[in-house]
Amino acid sequence: MAKVQARVEAALGRFLPSASIAPQRLHDAMRYAVLGGGKRARPLLAFAAGEFAGADPARLDVVACALECIHAYSLVHDDLPCMDNDVLRRGKPTCHVEFDEATALLVGDSLQALAFQLLAEHRLSDDPVVQMEMVKILAVAGGSRGMAGGQAIDLASVGQALSLPELEHMHIHKTGALIRASVALGARCSTALAPAQLGRLDHYGKCVGLAFQVVDDVLDQESSTATLGKTAGKDAADNKPTYVSLLGLTRAKALAEELREEAHAALTGLGGNARRLSELADFLVLRKF
Amino acid sequence: MAKVQARVEAALGRFLPSASIAPQRLHDAMRYAVLGGGKRARPLLAFAAGEFAGADPARLDVVACALECIHAYSLVHDDLPCMDNDVLRRGKPTCHVEFDEATALLVGDSLQALAFQLLAEHRLSDDPVVQMEMVKILAVAGGSRGMAGGQAIDLASVGQALSLPELEHMHIHKTGALIRASVALGARCSTALAPAQLGRLDHYGKCVGLAFQVVDDVLDQESSTATLGKTAGKDAADNKPTYVSLLGLTRAKALAEELREEAHAALTGLGGNARRLSELADFLVLRKF
Repeated sequence: MAKVQARVEAALGRFLPSASIAPQRLHDAMRYAVLGGGKRARPLLAFAAGEFAGADPARLDVVACALECIHAYSLVHDDLPCMDNDVLRRGKPTCHVEFDEATALLVGDSLQALAFQLLAEHRLSDDPVVQMEMVKILAVAGGSRGMAGGQAIDLASVGQALSLPELEHMHIHKTGALIRASVALGARCSTALAPAQLGRLDHYGKCVGLAFQVVDDVLDQESSTATLGKTAGKDAADNKPTYVSLLGLTRAKALAEELREEAHAALTGLGGNARRLSELADFLVLRKF
Repeated sequence: MAKVQARVEAALGRFLPSASIAPQRLHDAMRYAVLGGGKRARPLLAFAAGEFAGADPARLDVVACALECIHAYSLVHDDLPCMDNDVLRRGKPTCHVEFDEATALLVGDSLQALAFQLLAEHRLSDDPVVQMEMVKILAVAGGSRGMAGGQAIDLASVGQALSLPELEHMHIHKTGALIRASVALGARCSTALAPAQLGRLDHYGKCVGLAFQVVDDVLDQESSTATLGKTAGKDAADNKPTYVSLLGLTRAKALAEELREEAHAALTGLGGNARRLSELADFLVLRKF
């Protein structure tokens, strides 16, 4: 995993515009927002799915970086004062604190454009029709019926008493859509997999994505700001419904465990060597930060 | 032109998610930001270039809507308080005034994603490799070395005494990149054109794009808020360098005229019937709002 993380960090460094190219301040801020931090959960999932499918790692670099650009843009925009108004991210001042709000807005906008540029300018599949499908997968996962839509539901739910299905609906969009897309895009860098295998991988991605968020809610409650590298206890302070506020800590942990088992079960009938995917489900659910 | 505008309006209405689909408020705000207004300059250019190339109008609908989604997202984000802080757009309250800042932020993010979704989910070229190139053209035009980068240069130039080349550099990015992409994308909906023809069209797009901005600067100075549908005189009030502040009204108008002639000249050697493109250069430069 450390090897993939280092590899993706290097690829991001290459794909992001140099801070010496105009507009320098914007490029500097884009690099600040993306480089040198984060678990790289989405790249790890893309690599694990891609390796299972026998994909060329150079293609997985591109897909991993596109996913990370989308993820980083969403963090920069979510941290803005008009949204979650947060000052700490990955142990550093958030982008709008380090630079300014207008720059942070443009950083997010530019990172989203860069993600699609990456998917379009590199060959990612032997079949260009599959590659076009990959662009669509990322666009849908990031858009109003995916991640951005989940964020809108999140905003609307502050102070609301959500039901468990409503909370799940929010997180399947806000966090789940892009995690699921990570698995889907990694797998599609090879044309070796059958539709049934892609279907099982997709179910795995869905379970891991939801489990990831349940664990996030648990950690927000149980961990310290220093460990998380972002402000802890913020959900409760902001009066946001979470799995912990809805189920309590014990049942939230049990739910994460259930989802981890369901993710493993999805891998069982997959055929081939799914060890990396299996380990990753454990890593993402059993993590401490 | 009215026919194309009506056609694009109808297509946008179909392609934008219905306000009855969750998250409703976000979808409602996306429709508010895009529908019912604007000159649709970019769609008109895409249609004119596409018709010249003999492209299927159904393909041009898609490209026109993708361009308009990118343009509308940039207006919504530019109008935010941390950017230009404007309250009036297309004769209506800006998106963050009508809804709220967080929603306006997500509207922009979602519209950008939708633009790429549209380019990916419809067949736009007989050659999928050309279609992938179209995705790249839009991504580059919208990103940090295109429109978003131009906006960053714009922010940095408030209160600065720019030279004419510096001002041109800013506008070639901020406004010019997407206008140029409009011509390029429309033309690529057909595979009929030769590289030399695409090169001439690109030069036409570049001239029209810059002329468009010079005229914008003139109108910002000469027109009323009621005529423009947006706050007039704002550039001077915000201490922004413009063609008018740099050259004065007379020389700015002469520059627009020169660029219009250069656009016509680019069409001269093009072959075929370029009447629509020619008329459009006149329309966009001689407009009064």
